[in-house]
Amino acid sequence: MTVRETRFHMYVEIISRANQIAASTELDDLLDKMLDLLIEVTSAEAGTLYLYDEAHHELVFKVVKGSEDSQRLVGQHIGIERGVAGHVFTLGKPLFINDVATNPHWDRSIGELAGLSLHTMYCMPLMLRGHAVGIVQLFNLPTETCDDSDEIALIELLCSRLVTEVEKARLLSEAQRRERRQQALVEIISRLTTTLDRDELLDRIMNFACELLGVEASSIWLRDDKAGELVLHRATGYRPEQMIAQRMPQGHGIIGHVVATGETVTVNDVLQDTRFYRNIDEKSGFVTRSILCVPLRAPRIELGGLRGAVESRIIGGAQALNPHDGREFDAEDIDLFQSLAGQAATVIRLAQLYGDVETLSTRIIDAITGAIDLKDPYTRGHSQRVSEFSVAIAQELGLDNATLYRIRLASKLHDVGKIRVPDRILKKRKSLSEAEFNEMRRHPTYGVEFLQENGLLDLDLLGDSWRALAEHHERIDGRGYPKGLRGDEISLIGRIVAVADIFDAITSHRPYHPARPVKEAMGILHRLAENEIDPRCVEAIERAREKGLILAQDERV
Amino acid sequence: MTVRETRFHMYVEIISRANQIAASTELDDLLDKMLDLLIEVTSAEAGTLYLYDEAHHELVFKVVKGSEDSQRLVGQHIGIERGVAGHVFTLGKPLFINDVATNPHWDRSIGELAGLSLHTMYCMPLMLRGHAVGIVQLFNLPTETCDDSDEIALIELLCSRLVTEVEKARLLSEAQRRERRQQALVEIISRLTTTLDRDELLDRIMNFACELLGVEASSIWLRDDKAGELVLHRATGYRPEQMIAQRMPQGHGIIGHVVATGETVTVNDVLQDTRFYRNIDEKSGFVTRSILCVPLRAPRIELGGLRGAVESRIIGGAQALNPHDGREFDAEDIDLFQSLAGQAATVIRLAQLYGDVETLSTRIIDAITGAIDLKDPYTRGHSQRVSEFSVAIAQELGLDNATLYRIRLASKLHDVGKIRVPDRILKKRKSLSEAEFNEMRRHPTYGVEFLQENGLLDLDLLGDSWRALAEHHERIDGRGYPKGLRGDEISLIGRIVAVADIFDAITSHRPYHPARPVKEAMGILHRLAENEIDPRCVEAIERAREKGLILAQDERV
Repeated sequence: MTVRETRFHMYVEIISRANQIAASTELDDLLDKMLDLLIEVTSAEAGTLYLYDEAHHELVFKVVKGSEDSQRLVGQHIGIERGVAGHVFTLGKPLFINDVATNPHWDRSIGELAGLSLHTMYCMPLMLRGHAVGIVQLFNLPTETCDDSDEIALIELLCSRLVTEVEKARLLSEAQRRERRQQALVEIISRLTTTLDRDELLDRIMNFACELLGVEASSIWLRDDKAGELVLHRATGYRPEQMIAQRMPQGHGIIGHVVATGETVTVNDVLQDTRFYRNIDEKSGFVTRSILCVPLRAPRIELGGLRGAVESRIIGGAQALNPHDGREFDAEDIDLFQSLAGQAATVIRLAQLYGDVETLSTRIIDAITGAIDLKDPYTRGHSQRVSEFSVAIAQELGLDNATLYRIRLASKLHDVGKIRVPDRILKKRKSLSEAEFNEMRRHPTYGVEFLQENGLLDLDLLGDSWRALAEHHERIDGRGYPKGLRGDEISLIGRIVAVADIFDAITSHRPYHPARPVKEAMGILHRLAENEIDPRCVEAIERAREKGLILAQDERV
Repeated sequence: MTVRETRFHMYVEIISRANQIAASTELDDLLDKMLDLLIEVTSAEAGTLYLYDEAHHELVFKVVKGSEDSQRLVGQHIGIERGVAGHVFTLGKPLFINDVATNPHWDRSIGELAGLSLHTMYCMPLMLRGHAVGIVQLFNLPTETCDDSDEIALIELLCSRLVTEVEKARLLSEAQRRERRQQALVEIISRLTTTLDRDELLDRIMNFACELLGVEASSIWLRDDKAGELVLHRATGYRPEQMIAQRMPQGHGIIGHVVATGETVTVNDVLQDTRFYRNIDEKSGFVTRSILCVPLRAPRIELGGLRGAVESRIIGGAQALNPHDGREFDAEDIDLFQSLAGQAATVIRLAQLYGDVETLSTRIIDAITGAIDLKDPYTRGHSQRVSEFSVAIAQELGLDNATLYRIRLASKLHDVGKIRVPDRILKKRKSLSEAEFNEMRRHPTYGVEFLQENGLLDLDLLGDSWRALAEHHERIDGRGYPKGLRGDEISLIGRIVAVADIFDAITSHRPYHPARPVKEAMGILHRLAENEIDPRCVEAIERAREKGLILAQDERV
């Protein structure tokens, strides 16, 4: 066999090894092994491999071979105007250098391979569709190698192989990264919808935005149309004490433009944008470099049944500021932030809708409560106070928020049955006849009937809290009314409201007695705790009183 | 140069061309060109390329070369036990066949290349990490080719090249597909949150599930704990008339298991699963082959402020049935469906929470309304009827649902100010004194005060619908009360409620007059339309009456 024939077999073997290396889907591993192969094939002593970072117009050291110490170079960025690598990158053609040290392009500070004395270098651009995407440098290879057209052909084969692998690995890793970001977005969106608490919601949106986009800070501005302003509700990364409740006139700044027009605005250098509203930075000390600003556009939301729909509107805007590592905002950031902002706007709107209708129901209940108390001027404010006391007792008993909510509502309505008791009995100043007293004692039953007739008894929202109405005059010893229930037969909410009701009756002005001091009232409650009322509730109201949560009628302004 | 040397250059050229072909990220294009190259290199007349479909254990024709007619083979699947391809796939080693027609493995029905007389064949498995992932067949190549170790080496190089490209293209296209599905999921989840209408919501979830997973049918089962049942709420792909409102006992069937345990269950052959509940298929005629069943787990939802939170619970389950193309459910389907179901459960829960609190407020308003009407037994049901009439008029005027909602609520409360008018005036049977009449005429003002004192005036939800209370006794000619507004100074809602109020007053029994027939009432309204009330509203109530939407007190059961 001729030398060339031996070579032929060797080359087939090398290309076969390149195929095996290329089977790896780990780009770093693949680059490492390919550079090894190139060094072996060319009998070089060392080598480096750079890839081009398009976003920063820089070359990045990916692999350095031949010197342990030089591993520190891996990951470093150099400008494409620097060194032999930069020169060849610009040239787009390979270059053989006989004496590295004297070459005018050689830049010792970036290319030095510690412990190696360098003489020759073969530097090749990695070309993809006519553009350089990286650089391979081989050091101290025999001069003959570069005069040997077979060798050069093989090196070119391996390099062209390398470049398509780099490209495919890049496409794959980008697709995988985008997939992960989309997954993160799904996760984030799912977590957004688990709160209707507006402040908590705004907090989450901002934290998620920072996490998802990798930015230094983010903020949300909501419209206050009455004031004609935009209100900064939350900001992450600012000094919070200075930033809460900042306001600015609508239409001002980049955010003002976005809210007014519904356009997304990206500004990668705010100094170049005259719309940038400097006041906020000046007040906060934060230095805004770049902004991605998207509208918070709440969609039309169907409310179901006869409730109609709320129309789509822009409720504000969201900003992401300063991507980490000096990166610029790209199309993918814009897509992700728009998706997040769209969903955020929807959930803010849902929270607002829920809040509105919940406020309506609470205020309507307060209105009923007020109307009942008004039937008897002496009980003015009674239901409201009983509700406050009941909640305070329930809190001391460690009940959860959902239960507290029910107790708050139901205890306000505890006397709603009095709506059916004739005024002549209710307003009577003198003691009642037996018949009148019996009618008066029907008000718990009337109350439950009132709930039932109005379809309020079977609401999941209220659970069994109707027992506050039914059982607040029952007694532990079974001598209460209307049913004469005993001990645990009386619901906890019934026992709580009973204590709150008695406390208010003692400490407020009534036709049949003057208001008595709280201290005296506590004494009476303790006495009643022997057989009438639940001692745990009495202890609870006492503890709540010590914490300042219980204010009698006379103690209020 | 020796023959071998010439070959050497040719091979370098071929491998370089393979590199160029591999630069393509389009798998089909790449496969096509690689098979061309293999045919050229081996001087074959035709060739085929199959890839292994792991999900179905079949080989799929990807490229067929050498005969126009045989393009029909592309895309066809064959079992891995069939033909020479199947044989070599199982063998895992290349095979040279001298006379295709007489080979026992040759299967004319699958491999025939129309118009070509076949003699030799070289059939190679494409091996990746020790496993065959495809097959290349080359036809009518010179027998010498397969005796030439250089040729074989080159073919192997090209094939090993092909296989890593196939693998990378597969990874890339899968990552891209997953990315697209995640994007679709984000889009779907965003669209879910734009309705609180439960039926609409369930419909959307099911349609989105079919779209996202590519299945024939899907359904949602919600818990009805009172009945101890699971209720099928919607199904897509079933015959709908049979499937709506199917019920089954909790704990039964695969869905019952999923709802009870919170586990996800995948059954790729329901006949093998004893939990499968056959009744539903029997009733519907749908044939379930495979099921993916996930729990609908609503998370804990914070309600904000003093409202507490609702705890996490499984509210039902969702099923996807029969993936298209006989595919089996895979890990990715499970992930996607779980994400969709999680968000679906959240939004169903939000819709329920909104519905509960909205129902509460509506019923409480009804309760107030009832209590006002009760102050005067002669006006029993008046506010409720005025509300219905007002909504009917507003509908005839083409107002939108959101406005109808406000009109419905506010018109119920139009007389709420009467709560402040003393019973002795309100219940008086004889004609009122001037002073009494003045007090009576204050009820619109009292009504607005009632809203204001109870914080109901500044709710976005109600908008300016308080004008129903303020202006329902104003007259177009300015001679109404309390303000004497004229014409367009009176809000539309005020003019609507005025007409509804007068109609009900005429057609119901009052202390001072008996109920008059509807026909007579319409005549009176037309007369009043000359100067007191809005003629458009009179026409509207007349049209609504013709549609059967207006029933006077006496016409009701």
